[in-house]
Amino acid sequence: MTATLLLLRHGESTWNLENRFTGWTDVPLTATGEAEAHKAGQLMLQEGLVFDVVHTSLLLRAIATTEIALREMGLHWLPVKRHWRLNERHYGALQGLNKKETAERYGADQVFAWRRGYATPPEPLDWDDDRHPRHDPRYAELTPDLVPGSECLKDVVERMLPYWHDQVVPDLRAGKRVLIGAHGNSLRALVKHLDGIGDDEITDLNIPTGIPLLYELDGDLRKVSSRYLGDAEAAKAAAEAVARQAG
Amino acid sequence: MTATLLLLRHGESTWNLENRFTGWTDVPLTATGEAEAHKAGQLMLQEGLVFDVVHTSLLLRAIATTEIALREMGLHWLPVKRHWRLNERHYGALQGLNKKETAERYGADQVFAWRRGYATPPEPLDWDDDRHPRHDPRYAELTPDLVPGSECLKDVVERMLPYWHDQVVPDLRAGKRVLIGAHGNSLRALVKHLDGIGDDEITDLNIPTGIPLLYELDGDLRKVSSRYLGDAEAAKAAAEAVARQAG
Repeated sequence: MTATLLLLRHGESTWNLENRFTGWTDVPLTATGEAEAHKAGQLMLQEGLVFDVVHTSLLLRAIATTEIALREMGLHWLPVKRHWRLNERHYGALQGLNKKETAERYGADQVFAWRRGYATPPEPLDWDDDRHPRHDPRYAELTPDLVPGSECLKDVVERMLPYWHDQVVPDLRAGKRVLIGAHGNSLRALVKHLDGIGDDEITDLNIPTGIPLLYELDGDLRKVSSRYLGDAEAAKAAAEAVARQAG
Repeated sequence: MTATLLLLRHGESTWNLENRFTGWTDVPLTATGEAEAHKAGQLMLQEGLVFDVVHTSLLLRAIATTEIALREMGLHWLPVKRHWRLNERHYGALQGLNKKETAERYGADQVFAWRRGYATPPEPLDWDDDRHPRHDPRYAELTPDLVPGSECLKDVVERMLPYWHDQVVPDLRAGKRVLIGAHGNSLRALVKHLDGIGDDEITDLNIPTGIPLLYELDGDLRKVSSRYLGDAEAAKAAAEAVARQAG
């Protein structure tokens, strides 16, 4: 028996457009991002895909992308589970800063280390900063030690995998076809796990926005195959654009 | 301790606009319906309302209304449960027919009996009709005897109340503030229960589209108070418009 898993990174958000570090900041999609979501739904529909359950982060851009794509497929009625463990990487004190200006201020090497270093978190948001997620009601049930003020990809892997194992794997083991709507870095963390990518190699992996990434897994949830839906060249170009623009 | 419950009937759908019996037909909102949903969200926001959990039907017009209203409130991340027991009344063979033409064909009295008679279901959809919900994947897990081909309000009360008692009441008892996004008749069924309205009197109850109906319940979930948010005259006029146009 094989299991079907579809990973969908949200479409362009307002802060993608402004080239700002976003992280847990809850910005909406742009019109382009909404169009990407419609396109993603059409691609999945053309592929004849159907899902049984949906998982998303708690952030609007992933929730909206998933809602739009599912509506395009006539699957708006599917059960959905939302969890902070699928959130984007928390970008700490960099959140809100323009990426280009940040590179000018801190140097391209430092910014590259923050963006792509596996275990290099940026400076955390101050505990008393109004933007710290501990002030956000959606994280009110978390104990303070669990609420991040900044994360590196390693942190994301460590907080995402428990959700994968405890919430997604049981769905797949029960034969459910699963759609996950999430973010560049929470999906990189998952792909790292599924593809067995090393800590150093993951730097080179970029997941394009809005292009459905389909996994076929075996009964033990080991990867059988994976591919982007639609035009392969378009997916490659989109991934390269992400690499140029940053995480 | 009191419990907070908000009932929200979906905004105008394409078949409301065309004055057709809709039932379980999964039609989208009109632009007017989307505007009603935004307005509903604004009213709840102005009222300072916050929710902890959301319940909706499996039909797009209720799902979309709730999504739009919650996004307006910044509560798009709330957990949501969806269930067919919150669906609109199934209108049987009348689904798709224009209400005026139906009255001309069957007579106003017969149509009034179908629309407002507590225990008078219309003719069922044929078991082999493509539109019968047994062909719809969202109801695939129901045993055939549970899938309605037509319903009267009494049927709706009987299939809705188990969801209320088993899924909504535990949320309220746990102190959660609950939003239910549903339909004219599934909400009439719930209001009948909460307000203790008799089988004959319920005929006169009309719930306007898109106007949040706020209940305060006591610890045993008995009604303390209920009111429509916003302008009371507007809610009254909207309910009268519903009465004129039909269920």
